[in-house]
Amino acid sequence: MTDQMYRIALASRPEGAPTAENFSYEAAQIPTPGAGEVLVRVHYMSLDPYMRGRMDDAKSYAAPVPVGGTMEAGAVGEVIASQSPHFKPGDFAFGMFGWATHGCLPASHLRKLDPAQAPITTALGVLGMPGFTGWHGLTEYGKPKAGETLVVAAATGPVGSMVGQVARLAGLRTVGIAGGADKCELATGRFGFDACLDHRAYENARDLRTALKQECPDGIDIYFENVGGKVLEAVMPLMNPFGRIPICGMIAWYNAGGLGAGARDQGLTAPGLWRNILVNFLSVNGFIISNHFDRFPQFLQEVAPKVLGGEIAYLEDIAEGLENAPATFISMLGGGNVGKQIVKVI
Amino acid sequence: MTDQMYRIALASRPEGAPTAENFSYEAAQIPTPGAGEVLVRVHYMSLDPYMRGRMDDAKSYAAPVPVGGTMEAGAVGEVIASQSPHFKPGDFAFGMFGWATHGCLPASHLRKLDPAQAPITTALGVLGMPGFTGWHGLTEYGKPKAGETLVVAAATGPVGSMVGQVARLAGLRTVGIAGGADKCELATGRFGFDACLDHRAYENARDLRTALKQECPDGIDIYFENVGGKVLEAVMPLMNPFGRIPICGMIAWYNAGGLGAGARDQGLTAPGLWRNILVNFLSVNGFIISNHFDRFPQFLQEVAPKVLGGEIAYLEDIAEGLENAPATFISMLGGGNVGKQIVKVI
Repeated sequence: MTDQMYRIALASRPEGAPTAENFSYEAAQIPTPGAGEVLVRVHYMSLDPYMRGRMDDAKSYAAPVPVGGTMEAGAVGEVIASQSPHFKPGDFAFGMFGWATHGCLPASHLRKLDPAQAPITTALGVLGMPGFTGWHGLTEYGKPKAGETLVVAAATGPVGSMVGQVARLAGLRTVGIAGGADKCELATGRFGFDACLDHRAYENARDLRTALKQECPDGIDIYFENVGGKVLEAVMPLMNPFGRIPICGMIAWYNAGGLGAGARDQGLTAPGLWRNILVNFLSVNGFIISNHFDRFPQFLQEVAPKVLGGEIAYLEDIAEGLENAPATFISMLGGGNVGKQIVKVI
Repeated sequence: MTDQMYRIALASRPEGAPTAENFSYEAAQIPTPGAGEVLVRVHYMSLDPYMRGRMDDAKSYAAPVPVGGTMEAGAVGEVIASQSPHFKPGDFAFGMFGWATHGCLPASHLRKLDPAQAPITTALGVLGMPGFTGWHGLTEYGKPKAGETLVVAAATGPVGSMVGQVARLAGLRTVGIAGGADKCELATGRFGFDACLDHRAYENARDLRTALKQECPDGIDIYFENVGGKVLEAVMPLMNPFGRIPICGMIAWYNAGGLGAGARDQGLTAPGLWRNILVNFLSVNGFIISNHFDRFPQFLQEVAPKVLGGEIAYLEDIAEGLENAPATFISMLGGGNVGKQIVKVI
């Protein structure tokens, strides 16, 4: 066993869409775990849209990754050394190990996984942060009621597909939005959406809205917001009185920097948004899932049996090799993934 | 007794700020109450910012006033004829009688008032729709907690002054915003705000924000939204994580038409607003008080004793004469009133 590991650092901050030059692939020494710490050999790491926000030097809900620092990521792998009584070599664990082949963290920061129960990759998607985000946002702020209509974009992604399926099981009409005909087929097929619209097929928000209106004859009661931009513009006038909008992200604006703060949007004005919230008595709630981990056990208890029983489907898009993480990430920001984006590291 | 009454009709729809030409003062015949109806001689009528929205021909939460129709208003007066067992001549009642000297409505649309309990004008302000709006919005969506900081604009108006006082009694630090030094003195004096800023003293949102920051050293937990515009722009970056924004109005944008839909705002972008909701985990709730009259008895039970006991102060600005209602209304939209704007009709 060599004592060499590899990591991907933030080489420079992107202006607009990230490029390969913003990342650097670097060798480093494998750390030695201190008291209470656990060393893990990463098998799979997660790529998620929120990471784009961490690349900006803007006050957000989390500190930015410093230039030269390892890119942040959740990952799963095998314990190879432990200074904690709670973990032993051969155990599997989830932790925020970053874009790296190895990670060393206090045992209290890790979650033990049982590979016999569920594939360890599910801890990155359907039974991890993204699935939990969809379930929590929908149940806590969306307050779904049977017979209502829900719209969610990125419908085949790990958040959108969870939202759609939990809503369908609760008796809602579910309308997805996705990029491309193939993804729309996945949404209505594998994920059981009642309908799915390809946003790329509509030149502007107005045309998308016309199509949405047909698929939502009774209006929209819940819009689960994860994209912003054209979809938000299309959806807003269709919201029903007393509608709910949980906001977990707005990927369409991230490349403008500052997690969207720098974005301009032709079709949406602040007074128009604000007015819509007022006149339709909307409830709009922003959230980040890391504030709500007290509900994680309830999530697993409710959702894991349905995933393992096949009632809730999931889909993973697994790229190979840590060195390909930057290209995969850049592609994902443009919708190049199909399902939960994961990188196989080992 | 003559059978002549007077009313003010919407003569034409305003473009921008309303002018005298948008209104017409007209004579009409006093109606005769039908079965179950009650005829009231109006003593006082209410002028409220929401009426500006009713003048536009735009889909809103209420139907627009038709051109030629009587302007909408809540009013209080004396019953002069009744075809209902629930009212007799000499009773006092509140109802939506409009901008008029007389009104005839079904008894079920009226609320009986006891002039011995409280001045009947209070049914238009502190113990009527505006006070109820402040109390409901604050308690239901603001969720005030002792030690937190609240900001509200139009701090000497009937909504803002209720919000500030209920919040202060709940143990919050209360910071008002008002137009002019006199109103600020009223806010901190009569209404007990901890501080009040004169928005006219600050050229732009940035300067107002700097001043607000000083008065809100621990940030803002609740922003009770009734104005939009420069105040919203100043407040938004100061919101604390998990902050709450009840929205009952946005008067700064109303004159742009469509209850603000047509407004443009240099300082605020839709992506910027949306991002702020996300990264600070804000809860933003639009509401119109007419959906919540089930809580009105609770409001009266909690608040009326405090008003009658002097614990909650109120202030009325009473103009004389129905014919002066348009000029008074136009002035009020520009902040010309001091306290709840009422018109003495009789």
